[in-house]
Amino acid sequence: MKAIVLLSGGLDSATCLLIAREEGYDVYAMSFDYGQKHALELQRARALAGRYGVREHRVIRIDFPAARASALTDPSQSVPKDSLGREAIPATYVPARNMLFLAHAVAWGEALGVGDIFIGANALDYSGYPDCRPEFLESFAATANLATKAGSQASLRFRIRAPLLRMTKAQIVSKAASLGLDFAATSSCYDPSEAGKPCGRCDSCLLRAKGFSEAGIRDPLMGPM
Amino acid sequence: MKAIVLLSGGLDSATCLLIAREEGYDVYAMSFDYGQKHALELQRARALAGRYGVREHRVIRIDFPAARASALTDPSQSVPKDSLGREAIPATYVPARNMLFLAHAVAWGEALGVGDIFIGANALDYSGYPDCRPEFLESFAATANLATKAGSQASLRFRIRAPLLRMTKAQIVSKAASLGLDFAATSSCYDPSEAGKPCGRCDSCLLRAKGFSEAGIRDPLMGPM
Repeated sequence: MKAIVLLSGGLDSATCLLIAREEGYDVYAMSFDYGQKHALELQRARALAGRYGVREHRVIRIDFPAARASALTDPSQSVPKDSLGREAIPATYVPARNMLFLAHAVAWGEALGVGDIFIGANALDYSGYPDCRPEFLESFAATANLATKAGSQASLRFRIRAPLLRMTKAQIVSKAASLGLDFAATSSCYDPSEAGKPCGRCDSCLLRAKGFSEAGIRDPLMGPM
Repeated sequence: MKAIVLLSGGLDSATCLLIAREEGYDVYAMSFDYGQKHALELQRARALAGRYGVREHRVIRIDFPAARASALTDPSQSVPKDSLGREAIPATYVPARNMLFLAHAVAWGEALGVGDIFIGANALDYSGYPDCRPEFLESFAATANLATKAGSQASLRFRIRAPLLRMTKAQIVSKAASLGLDFAATSSCYDPSEAGKPCGRCDSCLLRAKGFSEAGIRDPLMGPM
């Protein structure tokens, strides 16, 4: 039983990887270099893939046509700090990102004969990105089954598995801890220092901190609670 | 009024480009280098973009994860000849290709503020690819509107425009002729010679020949009728 797991190197996707393994899947992991400033996460993704027994790991380069439309990819915009929840959809939104990631996964899945695709999307304690909502993921799966030979011949059905979708960040932290995730091996920050230290103030750091705090677990990437 | 046109360099997408111009759009064209053997089409796409007044032309590199799953991208498979219609979905099918192309177009469209995306998909005289069917294109548009900031805030609606969808190849040839397309500037062959001469026997050549023949027009890329 095989699955593709989208692995950014962050807390959520690493938890997703361990959930897929717990369910008994052989994991094929996929990471994406789309010009993100926080390319540190790709180093973490490679290390996580090695450490947690991923069968094959692909790091796919995306020649991203909308780089100037996101604070995560545009060098002239700074990553917003201390502004979690201030905007419905923040400046760190990346146009069509999950659609691009999932489309690559569908292509690889069809070549491998793998229909189950795990994504760490989360619609509770999240930044407000539209492509993390359940209605997007459901619609994408239907589209993927119409787009492909496998799906249209019903020889393989694509299923988008988002086990974290309705979990709070605290529940994700607790689940990851129960599965033995080494939190120090992940990276969530959108704007880490050159040495790899999280900024502690971007939306992603603030959400992560909220999750650890509510779960009553210490984040080894940060100072003491 | 702006539109993105997916421009492969073939007859259909070139016709689509002229239709978008006829409708009064400023055209932003997008082509894709996904490792196709017939990279000649990218040269033709560049020339067509220059010749027909495209505002901006992007050639996007796709790090295609399923190269070995298609005769168009796998060096160890030969492009099928003289076999048009023999298989429901032929070996030249490329997994998730139109989904990947359209996802890139949506990302660029969101950055440009452009919701209309033209694609030369055709569901009558075509090779049987599932991602050329109207049900895929409709589902994709709905997914794109759920995936994006623009779509989810209804500030911009993505529309997939496929003006050739229900035309025969002969009707496409006639339409292109009426719009003044220089047929010699296009390339349809999946397996052209190094000098750029079409093979005349792949599905794409056979469909093109059928269209010209039924339209009673001479194809300048081929010998006399």
